[in-house]
Amino acid sequence: MPTQVCIIGGGPSGMLLAQLLKTAGHDVVVLERQSRAYVLARIRAGVLEQGTVDMLRKAGVASRLDREGYVHGGTLLAAKNQQFRIDFDDLISKNVTVYGQTEVTKDLYDACGDLVIHGVANVDLADLHSKAPVVSYQLDGTVHHIKCDFVIGCDGYHGVSRRAIPSDVLTEYERVYPFGWLGVLSETPPVSQELIYANHSRGFALCSMRNEALSRYYIQSPVDDPLDKWTDDAFWDELRRRLPQEAAENLITGPSIEKSIAPLRSFVAEPMRWGALFLVGDAAHIVPPTGAKGLNLAVSDVHYLFEGLIQHYAGDDTGLDRYSEKALTRVWSAIRFSWWFTTTMHSFPGQSEFDQKIQESELALLAGSRSAQTNFAENYVGRPF
Amino acid sequence: MPTQVCIIGGGPSGMLLAQLLKTAGHDVVVLERQSRAYVLARIRAGVLEQGTVDMLRKAGVASRLDREGYVHGGTLLAAKNQQFRIDFDDLISKNVTVYGQTEVTKDLYDACGDLVIHGVANVDLADLHSKAPVVSYQLDGTVHHIKCDFVIGCDGYHGVSRRAIPSDVLTEYERVYPFGWLGVLSETPPVSQELIYANHSRGFALCSMRNEALSRYYIQSPVDDPLDKWTDDAFWDELRRRLPQEAAENLITGPSIEKSIAPLRSFVAEPMRWGALFLVGDAAHIVPPTGAKGLNLAVSDVHYLFEGLIQHYAGDDTGLDRYSEKALTRVWSAIRFSWWFTTTMHSFPGQSEFDQKIQESELALLAGSRSAQTNFAENYVGRPF
Repeated sequence: MPTQVCIIGGGPSGMLLAQLLKTAGHDVVVLERQSRAYVLARIRAGVLEQGTVDMLRKAGVASRLDREGYVHGGTLLAAKNQQFRIDFDDLISKNVTVYGQTEVTKDLYDACGDLVIHGVANVDLADLHSKAPVVSYQLDGTVHHIKCDFVIGCDGYHGVSRRAIPSDVLTEYERVYPFGWLGVLSETPPVSQELIYANHSRGFALCSMRNEALSRYYIQSPVDDPLDKWTDDAFWDELRRRLPQEAAENLITGPSIEKSIAPLRSFVAEPMRWGALFLVGDAAHIVPPTGAKGLNLAVSDVHYLFEGLIQHYAGDDTGLDRYSEKALTRVWSAIRFSWWFTTTMHSFPGQSEFDQKIQESELALLAGSRSAQTNFAENYVGRPF
Repeated sequence: MPTQVCIIGGGPSGMLLAQLLKTAGHDVVVLERQSRAYVLARIRAGVLEQGTVDMLRKAGVASRLDREGYVHGGTLLAAKNQQFRIDFDDLISKNVTVYGQTEVTKDLYDACGDLVIHGVANVDLADLHSKAPVVSYQLDGTVHHIKCDFVIGCDGYHGVSRRAIPSDVLTEYERVYPFGWLGVLSETPPVSQELIYANHSRGFALCSMRNEALSRYYIQSPVDDPLDKWTDDAFWDELRRRLPQEAAENLITGPSIEKSIAPLRSFVAEPMRWGALFLVGDAAHIVPPTGAKGLNLAVSDVHYLFEGLIQHYAGDDTGLDRYSEKALTRVWSAIRFSWWFTTTMHSFPGQSEFDQKIQESELALLAGSRSAQTNFAENYVGRPF
């Protein structure tokens, strides 16, 4: 079974690239380890940069997003019970859209779910440095082979794609943060329409929302905290302690419908291309969730790669040859921002009083300086592709 | 011998306040441990913020500065052999002036050196919470007492003034950086008219200048490196390695006329007032030299304190009562900037490849973003008083 482009991984980045290529008239196959039901049930972040929304529109999968997404023209930051707003609309005439990654994935499956082969195992990439790479996989006990022009690794940090690149070719950069995010989803009205990012000496807290009746809250916690230590009451009490007074007083609590602890990590693998293999999204880079750059960064990878592939099939390889360099420039910009935002907002083990004052001074600068706010807004809303 | 204001320490901040008060018709005495010759020989940094230049003009001691100072409309930053310029003039229509702190001190002594009593020992501050504080000191074997309205601590980090505040009143914040600056003064033409701040994986380097024939260069080094390890040749070789190629090639070297290693530290003591005692400059706060904020921050303290004292003698204590709060707001802003600039430019022991890439990403952001450049320029040139 030959195809032009074989995409490993049916998450949102793989599916977006598949949908764009399909719309442009190219042959695509997507291989996904999990079932469709499993993929569509995964809960992820939900803040889309303007460029991401534009890409989803370009792919023809944004009609529900345009109807149901919440446009946020700003965000709230807080330190020491002082809350202030960064006004994206006013500062840079741009905004972000709150729309769950789960919903993005669903819209993409509705558009091109037919391209996906689910339940594949033992995916193997061969002949990546030839003109005819081959992807093999096992399905229901039978081994299948796909000959293709290009293999696209959209299979995340733990996927096989990055590991297909010899280790002497790859440079990996990593920072593991010494804490996690304890997240709770609850069917309660959000305490704030816009997100609240709160610095507190007890640890970071984030108020986020999915819709008028569904809220997502996070508190910084030890990454190995047993979940049963965090009863709903314990979570709400701790969240309230870390929020500015007004938010704490207006918080409406309820039973959690999901509760989990996620680790925080920054990771980059370079280069993002090896022969006919191109890495996209989490397969090549991970950001901590502070600033919600993960999906957005995958989408900018898709943008550069899609342009390169279209150029290739028109006879010009410039775009593909520059893919890794162009993608990595934007990756490091977002890695830096996510690192800065994480470092500024969280309490670190052994953090001194001086460190805490520096964090508060960073936030005081943001609260009072238009140039600092503009820089924050540009990075939060997302640099142009 | 009664006076209105007794200033401890005849460095530039003490002398500037003395000159301002004298000009306004007030009685001032300045006590200085060292001789005039010693004070005037101390070598310090030499970048004056616009607000500092304005204050020196206001004090009537800026005629030589206006003649001989070098106005810098920008500065150069470098990382990985990429050099770029931050254009203060273009970004915020402000600039800085290169004029050695030694020269500032000389101009102040020319104006009001008559107010200084040199060679005092065993300075002691008493009755600071009364209406009649007393400063005592020893001179040529005799103990003297000065009754005054206010005692001003301009005697630096190691001075007696801060230690006169009970420890349960004082909160101290500190960060000691794990490296020093090895500085060389040489009678050679500067490699660049404007300063070059260079990030390098081997460590930070700075090219600075005093005048057309006098250069000041620094390289990051272990703080306990023996000076005799650093022959002139070893210094110039290491400096060249850390500079962008163009600067390295144009560097003109010569014998050093001064060579020393200085430690780097951030320090803040709060509050800056205790009864009739007011702390100014290094007595209350220390910044690492990256960004040259030390003298400039002392001058903004002098500004707030001078305004407060003038108001006091006109019957209004508001300014004095708000001195500590106003000064500390600006102090923390400069502490943050100096910390950020130091952290971004230096190589830290155990620094990972990820950390190095983050530094380069911070500098890439500065190189490419007008909002980031504007924010840098505002902080480098100095926030308004």
